[in-house]
This record gives sequence, structure tokens and C-alpha cells, in this order.
Amino acid sequence: MTDKGFSKEERNWQKKLHEVIYEADTRAGKIFDLVLIFIIIISIILVMLESVKYIDDKYHYVLLTAEWTITILFSIEYILRIAAIKNPKKYIFSFYGIIDLLSTIPLYLSYIIAGSQALLALRALRLLRIFRVLKLVRFLGEASQLKRALKNSRTKITVFIYTVLVVSIILGTIMYLIEGEDSGFTSIPRSIYWTIVTLTTVGYGDIAPQTSLGQFFATLIMILGYGIIAVPTGIVTVEFARQGNRLHINTQVCPNCSNEEHQDNAIYCHKCGHKLNQ
Amino acid sequence: MTDKGFSKEERNWQKKLHEVIYEADTRAGKIFDLVLIFIIIISIILVMLESVKYIDDKYHYVLLTAEWTITILFSIEYILRIAAIKNPKKYIFSFYGIIDLLSTIPLYLSYIIAGSQALLALRALRLLRIFRVLKLVRFLGEASQLKRALKNSRTKITVFIYTVLVVSIILGTIMYLIEGEDSGFTSIPRSIYWTIVTLTTVGYGDIAPQTSLGQFFATLIMILGYGIIAVPTGIVTVEFARQGNRLHINTQVCPNCSNEEHQDNAIYCHKCGHKLNQ
Amino acid sequence: MTDKGFSKEERNWQKKLHEVIYEADTRAGKIFDLVLIFIIIISIILVMLESVKYIDDKYHYVLLTAEWTITILFSIEYILRIAAIKNPKKYIFSFYGIIDLLSTIPLYLSYIIAGSQALLALRALRLLRIFRVLKLVRFLGEASQLKRALKNSRTKITVFIYTVLVVSIILGTIMYLIEGEDSGFTSIPRSIYWTIVTLTTVGYGDIAPQTSLGQFFATLIMILGYGIIAVPTGIVTVEFARQGNRLHINTQVCPNCSNEEHQDNAIYCHKCGHKLNQ
Amino acid sequence: MTDKGFSKEERNWQKKLHEVIYEADTRAGKIFDLVLIFIIIISIILVMLESVKYIDDKYHYVLLTAEWTITILFSIEYILRIAAIKNPKKYIFSFYGIIDLLSTIPLYLSYIIAGSQALLALRALRLLRIFRVLKLVRFLGEASQLKRALKNSRTKITVFIYTVLVVSIILGTIMYLIEGEDSGFTSIPRSIYWTIVTLTTVGYGDIAPQTSLGQFFATLIMILGYGIIAVPTGIVTVEFARQGNRLHINTQVCPNCSNEEHQDNAIYCHKCGHKLNQ
Repeated sequence: MTDKGFSKEERNWQKKLHEVIYEADTRAGKIFDLVLIFIIIISIILVMLESVKYIDDKYHYVLLTAEWTITILFSIEYILRIAAIKNPKKYIFSFYGIIDLLSTIPLYLSYIIAGSQALLALRALRLLRIFRVLKLVRFLGEASQLKRALKNSRTKITVFIYTVLVVSIILGTIMYLIEGEDSGFTSIPRSIYWTIVTLTTVGYGDIAPQTSLGQFFATLIMILGYGIIAVPTGIVTVEFARQGNRLHINTQVCPNCSNEEHQDNAIYCHKCGHKLNQ
Repeated sequence: MTDKGFSKEERNWQKKLHEVIYEADTRAGKIFDLVLIFIIIISIILVMLESVKYIDDKYHYVLLTAEWTITILFSIEYILRIAAIKNPKKYIFSFYGIIDLLSTIPLYLSYIIAGSQALLALRALRLLRIFRVLKLVRFLGEASQLKRALKNSRTKITVFIYTVLVVSIILGTIMYLIEGEDSGFTSIPRSIYWTIVTLTTVGYGDIAPQTSLGQFFATLIMILGYGIIAVPTGIVTVEFARQGNRLHINTQVCPNCSNEEHQDNAIYCHKCGHKLNQ
Repeated sequence: MTDKGFSKEERNWQKKLHEVIYEADTRAGKIFDLVLIFIIIISIILVMLESVKYIDDKYHYVLLTAEWTITILFSIEYILRIAAIKNPKKYIFSFYGIIDLLSTIPLYLSYIIAGSQALLALRALRLLRIFRVLKLVRFLGEASQLKRALKNSRTKITVFIYTVLVVSIILGTIMYLIEGEDSGFTSIPRSIYWTIVTLTTVGYGDIAPQTSLGQFFATLIMILGYGIIAVPTGIVTVEFARQGNRLHINTQVCPNCSNEEHQDNAIYCHKCGHKLNQ
Repeated sequence: MTDKGFSKEERNWQKKLHEVIYEADTRAGKIFDLVLIFIIIISIILVMLESVKYIDDKYHYVLLTAEWTITILFSIEYILRIAAIKNPKKYIFSFYGIIDLLSTIPLYLSYIIAGSQALLALRALRLLRIFRVLKLVRFLGEASQLKRALKNSRTKITVFIYTVLVVSIILGTIMYLIEGEDSGFTSIPRSIYWTIVTLTTVGYGDIAPQTSLGQFFATLIMILGYGIIAVPTGIVTVEFARQGNRLHINTQVCPNCSNEEHQDNAIYCHKCGHKLNQ
């Protein structure tokens, strides 16, 4: 029973470490996760502060020291995670495994490749871990319900976004022809950028139509954008409602034909007519 | 029966005062509440006018006198509220009690602590009292229905906002790296601010991407923001629908034919005519 | 039978005129309405063109002549409307009667009271007449369904807007205290204006927070505004759905107890258990 | 059987060409469609690049050559499409036929009529072909479901947009009278443009109210716009829900117990177990 050359003691040690690092059921596991989330938040605040010039000028060495501390802590955590799991490949190539690695290495890499600190942005993704930390509570259930609803409406949303893009290209080109370079519509891509800014009702105002015809046309785009927001909203709402109603579809299995998905008030199986166990 | 040293007469006086101040069922109570709402509105308009420089310059003493009058009226009201209730602590530490105190003291405090006039902003919260004044009519029912629906969708909304924040941090950092300081993305926090301005389709235009890559990326953020507004909308709509339906269709089962989904006011089953168990 | 001194002939004449002017069932009535809508549109375009300076400078006399022509046509129509109806008061004090009068008189008034041309704006309201012209087709049914749904959700919407206003006053005052006059938040009313611009995701950018704290706080307001748009949307959607479902509630009357509002699939009255006529 | 002078061999050739060009079931047909979509995307990118001045200056001849290549390829495709169909008129005057022609001719026309390159914008419409290419997969079903839902809510949406336009004209005129030319509200059409920018929550900020009264009024317009977005959203959501439900719950009635609302795949009544009439 001691495979891969582990003694029984070592296996126990690995098992316990796994419990602490990967699970949140025990007291130690919970504390580990909370400390981790805390360090992740600190690390993100650090990255932000470094980008503010006058703070970086003033506290450069404090920030650098803190950054090194975080990097070392993350490195230790990464090594422990690999050590604690029977099949390290499974972790290393998982979504969280890759994020963890990319959040750890930027400082090391910065001595080799310039600009690699850009990877620090990915640290924010580690915050998604919070959903795992909270996995004991209802949050995860709600999150997965949201995810399922969005997944189901994926095709409809794709069709919608594709149509919006085609419309934006056409309207953007027309606005380029109407307004021309004097109003800031210097090229078709820039004009399409403006169209999407308008259609999504963001409206920066860095580019705005100046001619009467352009303003009239812009008005149409706005009303279009104001109206079609109803489409994704409608799609998602209906999907959410269906997820909610699925509660009215219970998971009872017919004892005769193994059919599932019966309505809540079903007494007989709607497939074979056999009486359901109540 | 005369506890806390109150004579019977005093108790009666307290009871009547309580009726006038805390309840809106009697004519006197209604008048008190309407006068109070009127004074609250005046007090808020006063705070606003004081902040407009040329009005304050011109009518400084008029405004100060009015402010003192309001403060004294509020003080009297606060004392009466304490006097009128058997258990003053219950009022003092209630939501409305704290708001009432904080709305009253700023002028007194301004002689002790500079800047304490900031508390005047809290006066607007007193306007929420209107829901209590209107408690006799259907408004409160509707308000509590809205509140219940929002409360039920709280977890889903929290998950949603948390995810939006994580996404904003990541996208903001990427935009900081793409655009750099020349376009106004001077730091990561500022860049995250821009991302949220864009994602929520507010779009001030005080910061706007200048490079082609930045504009392309901004376009993606806009479409994302335009799309994901469907999520809170969907959540709340479904919850509202559930609240609404709960009122009209009960889950009673007909004892004769097992039919469900009867209207709330049903006495007989609409399927077989059998009397329902009430 | 000839009351108010009308001879039978005159009565007939009045009846025919009434048919043409007030109804759209006959051919003459339809033509009258279409011509009227056409003149209304012309009159609105005229008002717009007059406001464009270089057009007014160039074609002042053409526009003035056209304006006088419209005014005389509207005057004749107004007189005819009064002549054609048995009870003129009913028309004169109706919504459309007042709009018609106010759309007709500005040019006359402009010789007496300066600035009375402002009333010309009300001409656009005459466009609502189109719903009456189209009364034969399904548009009106849809419009009244929309109206009924909005009417039913009125209380909830009022509670919502009131709460939004109170929140805007509070947040606006806080932003005034945070940002101060240097960032354009020169007074509390102006700051509340900015808050509503932000909360409704309009975001002009004429005023924008400059300090870090202000931008952080603005971010919260945006997310709030982005989220709470779900509330009116949810309210109206649910109300629309109910209007649609009302099709599933039929208007059958119980032959026994006169109860109404039965479900579509009801066989027995849910009030008294009596069988319904199918 | 050889009508229109085609020999049997020719007919076969035409049939095969039809299969490749118009259908996507065969391997050759799929490849043709994918290559076509690829060329369409290239052609759109070309049009965009030509509009960017510094790219056009640098690579003018490369772009012109590429544009000619695309034009010739499109011309060949257009001729083949006519050749491959029995009844060419049906294709030529169809939506796609007209788009195909207009996407092909601009370069030819540019030697005859100046400015005819504007037609190039229509090329983006060719991208809609992707829905036909993907016709084998579920995308088309979803698209047609969206289309049907939008078609059904067309009347309601028309009523809504018409009302919004009337309201915008009125509010725009009022804002013109309040703000005047100093704040950029130089004419009524421009003022209406501003109103729609505000009502749809786009908010460029190129024109913004300066007076207190104007800002107060603008606030009302914003809250109105923020609220009425609920109307199209509600309409479309309800229509989507109806489309969705239509697929899952049929209106079959159980011959035994008159129960309704069976799932689409039901064979037996879920209430009494009786077989349903199929």
C-alpha cells in the first residue's frame, strides 16, 4: 500500500497537508484559506500602490520588500500545493494551478524579461478562490446557478453579439462617410469604436457628431442601442426563470422506465404511465 | 401600576403624546407627521441653499436664523420622542433614533468640532420617515414587497458584484499596461476607475483610450458591460415574479382530484368542484 | 326634438361634421385625420426650422407666412370642432381640447405677451392624436395594454423613484464634502445633479471627481446605479407578464354567484363550486 | 426533360455547382462557405485599412491590388451564383442577391461615379451569410427564435418608440427655451438631439445644461430615461418567455381527467396515468 516510495507516515503527512490546503472543512483548512485570501488582497493592493507614481517614489523600498515577501509566500504555497497532492499534474495544469504559477513568477521573471510584471494583473484572478473558500455556504450554489443560466443562454447571446457587431461595422462606416475627419471620425475603425460607444450607451463624448445629418443618424443609433439592450436582458431573465422553475421539475426517477425530470405535481410518469414513488 | 414614579395622569399624558408622535392613525398624529415631513424638506432645502455660494453670501443671516430654528424644532421633537416612549433606549438606538439625533446636533457640534456640519447630509435620511407616515396606505406594502425581493436576491447580487469587481481589477490593470500614462491612465486604481465607468456604461469621457489597441479593448469592455447588465436585471425580475405569484396562486391540493395551483381566494376546486380544505 | 334652436337640417349638418372631424370610420373622416396629422407634422417642422438661426435669417418671411397659414388652419379646425359637438364644454376642457387651443394661440398671443411662443412646444403633443387616428387597428390595443401595465406598477415605481431621490440627496451631499469646489462640485444641488447623472449611467463628464476618494466613491455610485436599474425593469416586466397572463384568466361569469376572473381551464366556479357554462 | 436548351450533362454540372455554392451539407459546400466567409472578412478589413490615412499612404498600391483581387473574386462568385440556379431572378432580387451585387460593384462604379465607394460599407452585411453557413447547427434555430420574438413585440415597440419621440420633441423644445444658445442649445433640433442623448443615458457631454433650472429639468429627463428603459425590456422579456414556454409545455388535454399543461415529451398524463392522444 506504499506506492511511489512513500512510507505510511509520509502519506499521512501528505493527507493532512492536503486537508489543510485544498479543503475548507476543518478548522485548520478554514484558517489557511482566510489567511490566503488576506495575502492575495494585500498583494493586489501592493500592485496598485506601485503603479501610483508619488507613492512608489516615496516608499519604493518598502513596497519592494513587501513584494518580495508576497512572492516568497506564494512560492512556498505553490510548492506545498504540489507536495500535498498525489497527482501534481492535475493541479499544475488546472485553471487555478496556472493562475497560481503566473501570480508567483513575475518578480523572478522581471530579472530576465523586461515588462513581465504585466503578469501581476493576473493576481486578481486569484480572488476567484474566494468562491472555493466559501464553498460550504450557499454562495457557491448561487454562483453555479448563475453560471448554468449564462451557459444555457450562450448560443443566443453569441447570435446577438455577432449581429450587434455586423450592425456596428455598417453603422460605423456610414457615420465615417457622413461626418468625415473634421469631427474626429478619422477612420472607419475609429468610427466603429464611436458606434459601439454610442450603441452601448457609454457615450464618452471624446468623439461626437457635429453635422445635422450626423446628429440625426446618431440619434437613431442611440434609440437602437437603448432598445436592443432588451434582448440580452430578456434572454438571461427567461433563462434565470427557467433555472428557478427547474425547482418545480423534481429529480424523481421513474421506478419503471428510469425517466427523469418530472413536474412537481406529477403522480404518474409521463413517459410510461407507471406510478411514481411519492 | 404607577411604575417609574409616573402618576396615572402623567401616564395618560405620555400615552397621548405617543399617539400623536409615533402613530399616524389619529387626526392629530397625521397632522404632526405632515408638519414634520414639511420641516424636514425645509431643512434639506436650507442645507442645499447654504452650500450655494452667492446665496449664502447674500442671505447668510437669514439662513443661519432658519438653521437655528430648525435645529431647535428638531431638538424639541427629539426630547418629546424620548419623553413619549416607555422604553427610551429602544428609540434612541433604533435606526430612526440615531438618524434623528445626528440630524439635530451638527449645529451644536460646529462650535466644538470643525467640519461636523458634514452630518447635515444625513438629514435626507429623515425623508425615509415618509414611508411611516404613509403606512396606512398601500405604499408600505409595495415597499416591503420590493425589500423582500431584493433581500432574497441578495446572495446572487453579491456573487455578481464580486465577480464584476474581480473582472474590473483585471481589465483595469490590462488597460493601464496598454494605454500608459499619456492617455490619462496614470495608475492602476485610476485605470480600474475608468473600467468601472465604462463597464457600467456611465462613460464620463474624462479618461478615454487613445491608442487603437486600447480602443479595441475598450470596445470589448463596453459590450461586456452592455451584456452583463442582464444579470442583475434577470435576478431581480425573476425574484419579483416569484413575489407576485406567491400572492395569487397558493399550493393547496384538492382533496378529491389532487389538482394544485388554486387561486388565493378559491373555496372550491376549479377542476372537480370539490370543496377545498381551508 | 330641435333643442337649442337648431333646425333639423342644421342638426344633420352638425352630425355629418362630427362624423368627419371626430370619427375615423368613414372615408371622409379618415382623410380629414390624415390631412390633420400631416399639417401637425409640418407645423412642428416649422417651429424647429424657425429656431435654427441661419435658416430663420434666410427664409424669415417664408416661415412667417407658413406659420400664419398653419395658425389660421388650426383656428378653423378649432372652431369646427366646437361647432360639430353637441356639448362644446366637454371638448374644450378635455386633454385634447386644451392642447388644440394652446397649439393655436401662440402667434396671436405673441403680439400681446412676449415669449408666449414657448407654447409652440406643446404642438408636439398634438402628435398623440395619431393614436386616435389609428384607433381602428391593433395599435391602440397595444398602447392601452402598455398603459394599464404602467398604471398598475405606478405605486412600486413611485416608491422606487422616491428612494432613489433620497439616496441621491445623501450621496450628492457626501460627494460635495469629499470633492469640494475645485472639482466642479460647487454646491450641494450641483453635486446632487452630478449624482443623478452618474446613478442613471448618463455620465456627461462635465463634472467628474478628481480626488482618489471621490473616484472611489463615484465607483460605488455607478455600481449602485448599474444594479438598481434592475428594479424598475423587474417591476414593469412582471406587470407586463401579468397583463399577458390575464389572457389566461378569462372573463366568464359564474351563473350561480356572478364571480368573475376564472382561470382558463376552470370547469367549476372556485367560489361556489357551481359548474361554469363552457 | 432538357428544358431551356440544357443538355443532361450541363444540368448535372449546374446541379453540382448549386450544391457547392448554395448548400452547406456536402464537404465541398462547407469548404466553399468557409472560404467565402474568410474572403468577406478580409474584404471588410481592407475597407477599414484604406480609411486609416497613414496606412493608406504607406501601402496604397498593396491595398488597391488586394481590393481589385477581392472585387474580381466577388464578381466570379456572383456570376457563378447566377449560373448555378435554375431561376436566376429569384436570387438576383433576393436580399442576399442585392447585397452581393452592391458589395461587388463599388470599385467598377468608382470610375464612373465619384463617391460610390460608400457602397463598400454594405459588405459588412455579407457577414450575415454566416447564419446560412451555420444553418446545420443550432445557431439558426436560436436566431429565428429571437427574430420571431422581436417580430411579435413589433407593434408594442413601435408604440413605445413613437411615444418616446413625441416626448423628446416636447422636452427638447422646453430645454431650448430654458437653456438658450449660450449653453450650446442653439436650435430646437439640436436640443432634441441632446434630449435623446440624455434620455437614452448615452450622455456625451458635448452639450450640457448650465443653468440651475436646466440641470433640474435634465435630472427629470434622466430619471425618466432610466425608468422607461424598463418598457422595451419588459416587452421583449415577456415575448421571449412566451416563445420559450411554447416549446416546452403543450396545450394537450388529458382525455381522462381533462388535465392540461403537459410537457412536450409526455405520452401519459402525469395526473391520472391515462395515455394521451398523440
